[in-house]
Amino acid sequence: MTDSSMQARPPQAALEFWFEFGSNYSYITVMRIEKAAAAHGVKLIWRPFLLGPIFKSFGWTSSPFVLQKEKGAYTWKDMVRQCRKYGIPWKHPDAFPRSGVLPMRVALVGAEQPWIGEYCRRVMMLNFAYDQDIDNVQAVSEVLKGMGLPAGDIITEATAEPTKLRLREQTGAAQAKGIFGAPTFFVGDEMFWGNDRLEDALAFAVSSALA
Amino acid sequence: MTDSSMQARPPQAALEFWFEFGSNYSYITVMRIEKAAAAHGVKLIWRPFLLGPIFKSFGWTSSPFVLQKEKGAYTWKDMVRQCRKYGIPWKHPDAFPRSGVLPMRVALVGAEQPWIGEYCRRVMMLNFAYDQDIDNVQAVSEVLKGMGLPAGDIITEATAEPTKLRLREQTGAAQAKGIFGAPTFFVGDEMFWGNDRLEDALAFAVSSALA
Repeated sequence: MTDSSMQARPPQAALEFWFEFGSNYSYITVMRIEKAAAAHGVKLIWRPFLLGPIFKSFGWTSSPFVLQKEKGAYTWKDMVRQCRKYGIPWKHPDAFPRSGVLPMRVALVGAEQPWIGEYCRRVMMLNFAYDQDIDNVQAVSEVLKGMGLPAGDIITEATAEPTKLRLREQTGAAQAKGIFGAPTFFVGDEMFWGNDRLEDALAFAVSSALA
Repeated sequence: MTDSSMQARPPQAALEFWFEFGSNYSYITVMRIEKAAAAHGVKLIWRPFLLGPIFKSFGWTSSPFVLQKEKGAYTWKDMVRQCRKYGIPWKHPDAFPRSGVLPMRVALVGAEQPWIGEYCRRVMMLNFAYDQDIDNVQAVSEVLKGMGLPAGDIITEATAEPTKLRLREQTGAAQAKGIFGAPTFFVGDEMFWGNDRLEDALAFAVSSALA
């Protein structure tokens, strides 16, 4: 037995990634988070949730980018620049925010599967690179089939009552954690909000695991 | 005459910096913008304005960090981490947002003076590093005197009607430009919002001047 084999293995750094398919800044993060987390050696925990019920709890009837027109006008200019900066495609969506309940339920089914990252990128690109609706069986089936996955079985599981209940519970958990927008990251109890904080959150995850 | 002296001098890159002393994210930017702009060779144009009238125009009675408690709770945690990251002091203010009308009027008087950067840093530190009120003659006088400036003359000019009118006009100009928060940067007509966008705005200023 060598010295090194006697050392306890340090706990792996982990990051919870709370996201929603209707959220444009979640789009940027979804497109880059798997690569960024791997580069830091950080394990990703995918946490799909619904923003709608949280916005409703604030008394909002839609996204703040819709309700506050000055911020909304800015956001679309910012998205053009940010997507260019990160090298990801962008097409201004005709409908915003798009409902994504079905693809979110599928994301919940697949959250611990190896295909979750690629699946999320494809759904997000449908919404924000191809400007297409995502909340229907045909769109989600095509994404899953395009990845060689058993679309019928997955959608059956995604639309069963236990999954619906789990997504409501996960949305309630988001609210209980103080989440007010997306994307949001957690490292333990430490919250980081927004695509702009991904690097800070990953660095914090790494330093927490070493501590 | 050498070849190089015959070349037209390229226009210097410039950045408008719209800020308010009551804004915590403006604090971070004020503390670092002069050095960052100098490193990029970008000329800074200081544009003090009042956020209060703009928030009122949205129907808000205070800062969104006060009105939306989840976002507010997050903001104070984010400030601790951001200030640590940038290496600037931070003390959670007992009063928020603090009124800063008098120091803003002085900033307008000094906007094109060589002392504007140092003056703004000192006022911001009173608010966010020493947790002291800033909207009174004594506080502003001490800041100016501490810099060897003629505090009495400057405050007289700052509180004269033409300066008051100019600050109202500058606030109206901010609103007309679609500004909805602070800090906000402009390079020509291109708007960048938030301390997180300072580097993008400086890079854009440099590339615009070269174009």
